[in-house]
Amino acid sequence: MVDAVHVGSVAVVDRAGRLLYAAGNPWVDVPTRSALKPFQAMPLVAAGALERFGFTAAETALLCASHSGEERHVAAAAALLAKAGNGVDDLCCGSHVPYRYEATGLPPPPPPYSPLAHNCSGKHAGMLAWCVHCGAPKAGYLDFDHPLQRAIRRSVAHFTGVAEDGMAWGIDGCSAPNYAVPLAALARAFARLAGDDDDPEYGAAPARLRAAMIAHPEMVSGEGRSDLALVRAGRGDWVAKVGAEGVQAIGISSRGWGIAIKVADGAARGLLPATVAALDALGLLDDTRRAALAPWREPLVRNTRGIVTGTVRPVLVLDKKTTPDTQFRGATAEWGRA
Amino acid sequence: MVDAVHVGSVAVVDRAGRLLYAAGNPWVDVPTRSALKPFQAMPLVAAGALERFGFTAAETALLCASHSGEERHVAAAAALLAKAGNGVDDLCCGSHVPYRYEATGLPPPPPPYSPLAHNCSGKHAGMLAWCVHCGAPKAGYLDFDHPLQRAIRRSVAHFTGVAEDGMAWGIDGCSAPNYAVPLAALARAFARLAGDDDDPEYGAAPARLRAAMIAHPEMVSGEGRSDLALVRAGRGDWVAKVGAEGVQAIGISSRGWGIAIKVADGAARGLLPATVAALDALGLLDDTRRAALAPWREPLVRNTRGIVTGTVRPVLVLDKKTTPDTQFRGATAEWGRA
Repeated sequence: MVDAVHVGSVAVVDRAGRLLYAAGNPWVDVPTRSALKPFQAMPLVAAGALERFGFTAAETALLCASHSGEERHVAAAAALLAKAGNGVDDLCCGSHVPYRYEATGLPPPPPPYSPLAHNCSGKHAGMLAWCVHCGAPKAGYLDFDHPLQRAIRRSVAHFTGVAEDGMAWGIDGCSAPNYAVPLAALARAFARLAGDDDDPEYGAAPARLRAAMIAHPEMVSGEGRSDLALVRAGRGDWVAKVGAEGVQAIGISSRGWGIAIKVADGAARGLLPATVAALDALGLLDDTRRAALAPWREPLVRNTRGIVTGTVRPVLVLDKKTTPDTQFRGATAEWGRA
Repeated sequence: MVDAVHVGSVAVVDRAGRLLYAAGNPWVDVPTRSALKPFQAMPLVAAGALERFGFTAAETALLCASHSGEERHVAAAAALLAKAGNGVDDLCCGSHVPYRYEATGLPPPPPPYSPLAHNCSGKHAGMLAWCVHCGAPKAGYLDFDHPLQRAIRRSVAHFTGVAEDGMAWGIDGCSAPNYAVPLAALARAFARLAGDDDDPEYGAAPARLRAAMIAHPEMVSGEGRSDLALVRAGRGDWVAKVGAEGVQAIGISSRGWGIAIKVADGAARGLLPATVAALDALGLLDDTRRAALAPWREPLVRNTRGIVTGTVRPVLVLDKKTTPDTQFRGATAEWGRA
């Protein structure tokens, strides 16, 4: 019996945004959700706030995290706040059952849960640090027209190559503005995150964020979770960020590639099998990586008695583009320039 | 921003299995999951076990339940076992966090959870009662070739009109064999469940099960859950059963119709909006029903701070079949006979 089918799209692009490989519709508009976090942190890093506040590499990684609310995550979020003179009460992310429980199969304690354990607390602590660093009001830091959110939009437009007024937007799970871009544009942003060169506008910020995310994948994700497995399997070459509703973005430094994947129905269940199958189809898996990622590629389905009742299987056909495609509505002039 | 799209199919048939209305692919093979429960209970009822063991109407409803593990559900499951001389240790359903917690937003207590609170405990108690009533061994009552499961297959084939050897099968979440049938065949079974006439083979069993499910929807489902809302909105005319992985079946007595809906990706999120939209498109909603079901039709999406960040919206185009279609692979000769 086939219980369910998830469909989706894959885009693989180079740093200029040229589409190299695709499945489904690589131009589909995709809310970036948490895959946006490195680009939401970019203004803070580019402004020199890491040095001013003495944020460690682990704390810097937490700026880009959808973390599990493990003790080290909560401690780093508290440090990010304290070093910039902010407090827990400044956080406007809300709270939820920390991911650590689902990831490890442990039952969660009863609520309330600290905002520090919210998967986005590092991002929000970074947003508050930007306000302090740049002399902007902390109040309303999530408002669409707050200087911080304007700065983030410039960053998102710069790295994705999508004009600011060409991006649909909405309110994310943590109440921050979030943006939709074509899947290939999200891939392009990760191709740029994976590069070593100084960015013409953001200098060493992309390379610093990537280095922190790769040095401390346990701070970006959490024990038992997929981004931790992906970055460890990448052995320094891959930077990965998952997003809600079936979004995965990966930058591959050695190839200069960005990969973005979207499951159309938003199901996490379909995302990792498709992701690992795409990495394999792109020739990025050696035996060690293939073995490490096998449980994510074809996870077993167990029932309420622990019996294996099925599997999730990826079915992927990745087309190689012989004439790289760089066209989409809303692209800036920069898109497609090598 | 559109975060996700769920696609699916709808089949509306009469008691002979003639396709009256459809969306998507009404012939898609669909694992019936918990929508099968009334037909898994049918052999027990037809064999006269309700009378022998003195099962009440509420307990009879629990035979067909995906219940929430509320106190009344646990008590009724215990009564079903005790009246037939069985015990909790005979249950082979396993255990899970009872649905009552998610349905009401309360945090669950730590495990372990009693098998009596498993959403299928009533079904399993009924299966064990059949073994006692018919003198079959309780051991192995979930085995594909156990006499009980053979009897259930005959019931499923009879009501769906699909040949026994034409049904794909698998192991359900509760470890019982489960069967896939064309969506229209599941609808047909519910059209027959909704009828008043004695069944040529199962006598008054369908009418008795339907009466119990309609008299005690709180035993089939649970507080805050969709089947309870649907059956209450139906005011005696609708019998409804949800199944895992995006399955909904409804029998409409006044029309002699069965309706079956499947969300292809299995997401519950897409199921109820589609279900209510289908009921509306079929002219089954008066103002009272429309108001009662409105929260299920366009549920609000709230984020971790409780802010409304979006909605789920049904988009349904239901085609009226001017030439009723009764053809599919694996149909019995009975299919399509008025």
